Amino acid sequence: MKIAILGAGAMGMLFGGYLSQHNQVWLVDVDQDRIHYINANGVAVRENTGEDRSFHPFAVTNVADLSAMDLIIVFVKSMYTTQALETNQQLIGPETYLMTLQNGAGHESKLLQFADEAHVIIGTTQHNSSIIANGHVNHGGKGKTQIGLLSGDSRRLETIAQNFSQCGLECSTSADVKRQIWTKLFTNTSASALTAVLQVPLGFIHEDTHAHKMMEVLAREATAVANADCGGGFDEAEVIEGVDTVCRNAPNGYTSIYADVKKGARSEVDTISGSVAETGKRLGIATPYHEMTVALIHAMENRNRTQGKS
Amino acid sequence: MKIAILGAGAMGMLFGGYLSQHNQVWLVDVDQDRIHYINANGVAVRENTGEDRSFHPFAVTNVADLSAMDLIIVFVKSMYTTQALETNQQLIGPETYLMTLQNGAGHESKLLQFADEAHVIIGTTQHNSSIIANGHVNHGGKGKTQIGLLSGDSRRLETIAQNFSQCGLECSTSADVKRQIWTKLFTNTSASALTAVLQVPLGFIHEDTHAHKMMEVLAREATAVANADCGGGFDEAEVIEGVDTVCRNAPNGYTSIYADVKKGARSEVDTISGSVAETGKRLGIATPYHEMTVALIHAMENRNRTQGKS
Repeated sequence: MKIAILGAGAMGMLFGGYLSQHNQVWLVDVDQDRIHYINANGVAVRENTGEDRSFHPFAVTNVADLSAMDLIIVFVKSMYTTQALETNQQLIGPETYLMTLQNGAGHESKLLQFADEAHVIIGTTQHNSSIIANGHVNHGGKGKTQIGLLSGDSRRLETIAQNFSQCGLECSTSADVKRQIWTKLFTNTSASALTAVLQVPLGFIHEDTHAHKMMEVLAREATAVANADCGGGFDEAEVIEGVDTVCRNAPNGYTSIYADVKKGARSEVDTISGSVAETGKRLGIATPYHEMTVALIHAMENRNRTQGKS
Repeated sequence: MKIAILGAGAMGMLFGGYLSQHNQVWLVDVDQDRIHYINANGVAVRENTGEDRSFHPFAVTNVADLSAMDLIIVFVKSMYTTQALETNQQLIGPETYLMTLQNGAGHESKLLQFADEAHVIIGTTQHNSSIIANGHVNHGGKGKTQIGLLSGDSRRLETIAQNFSQCGLECSTSADVKRQIWTKLFTNTSASALTAVLQVPLGFIHEDTHAHKMMEVLAREATAVANADCGGGFDEAEVIEGVDTVCRNAPNGYTSIYADVKKGARSEVDTISGSVAETGKRLGIATPYHEMTVALIHAMENRNRTQGKS
């Protein structure tokens, strides 16, 4: 396949590298230094065995020389999705699939401005990756990738899924991927985000009356947005029970968003709580509790970065 | 005057003690031990000179022997206001004034269940008081007390104001006391409460974009409730500017609610943010940001009390 990956960040380089084994892959990014570096040296992936693997996808800042791709995977930060697709519109033909594996909900609404429902692929992946140095990423975690179409039979994507699997990115298709995205998001947005705000382990959300009440309020808000987004089917009480179970089963668990806020790093709150708020806004569902969570966590990131303490 | 004070807590004992110099004062409380102690030993007030002053108001748990008062001052915690007035309804005659000097907004709505608008007095006081030991309070701060009627000419209260002043509680009447209560509350509910949630000095609210945005959202919500409560007259932009000025002028100021949360003590959030949320609920104004603030602060109090740290 001819594949373009928008965004040569940690995830873009990981997927671009792996997929370049059996496909023609172009990494597209606005950062000319990084693109130069990748063309000169390739992409290096540090596996958790300690081994460094080297891959050689193409890399470009400008797509003027390219034509329609079979697949475009969007791995820019979500706030840049629309802009990246606009700039690289030349890569999108009538048969091009647009895929998002970005964390959070609602990314498909941006992709739908550039392709019809039968060509928009959403998905989740358990891989994660962080940048070690220029052109060098650490492949911190691996696992399954699940993809599905917004409309039509997702089994049409079997060829893509098999291709990914051959490249070492275990992948399957799912008829229900949008629900899976939301189910994962419920815990992140109503429990993980709260552990960051309160700087507590997950168990506190289960144990403390007030924290539990906030979790419920966030879960209800997210459920309302999810139901508007998926045409119903999520039950508030079940969602709350599901989130509470996660908290109860990992009482001493500290989330990555908790850790990021604690050390004053930029957390993933925008893709978690922020994506719920954004989707709610688009669908006319008020999400004041999610908006406040986003603002609180950003303020705490800034406070901790400035003060150098938690 | 014949004065009953409902609630022999720190403020009730202070006012009851002072006012007993030139009035017949009954302290009414459900705590039999405290009432016994006060009848046996009086009320002791530690002034900030170090001097202990002693006063001898009457003290009762049961008002069966008493009849209508000239004035009843409510100093119970706001959640017990209605119950306290109900239990002691025998003290309320057609000419009895009901007064609240409790912190926060909206207390008058409860008093109005027991008296008409021409007999409900609201006010603010700069006195503060905390309990040192049984029957013994520390008079931590003093200043002006302002009182006004909900309806009619507040100058009708001159006699009461002069009486208070003669007893050492400097007091004046004001036609605009309800607005003054809200003006004080705007800063407490949109800046002070936020310094507790974020554990920062006031200046951070002025400086940090996200903290400032949250302050604005809280100030807008409080302004909407205040306008519903007062029939309009508060301008969002002016309120925000007023709150921001307080933050700018005291960049290193730490609020008492910040300190309470830090040490895991029970803070005043219910009378501050909670009273805005409660008034909003009564008047049909949604206050999600205030509700979340209340829940967050209670969760933080619990976390810090449990963990013994900030």
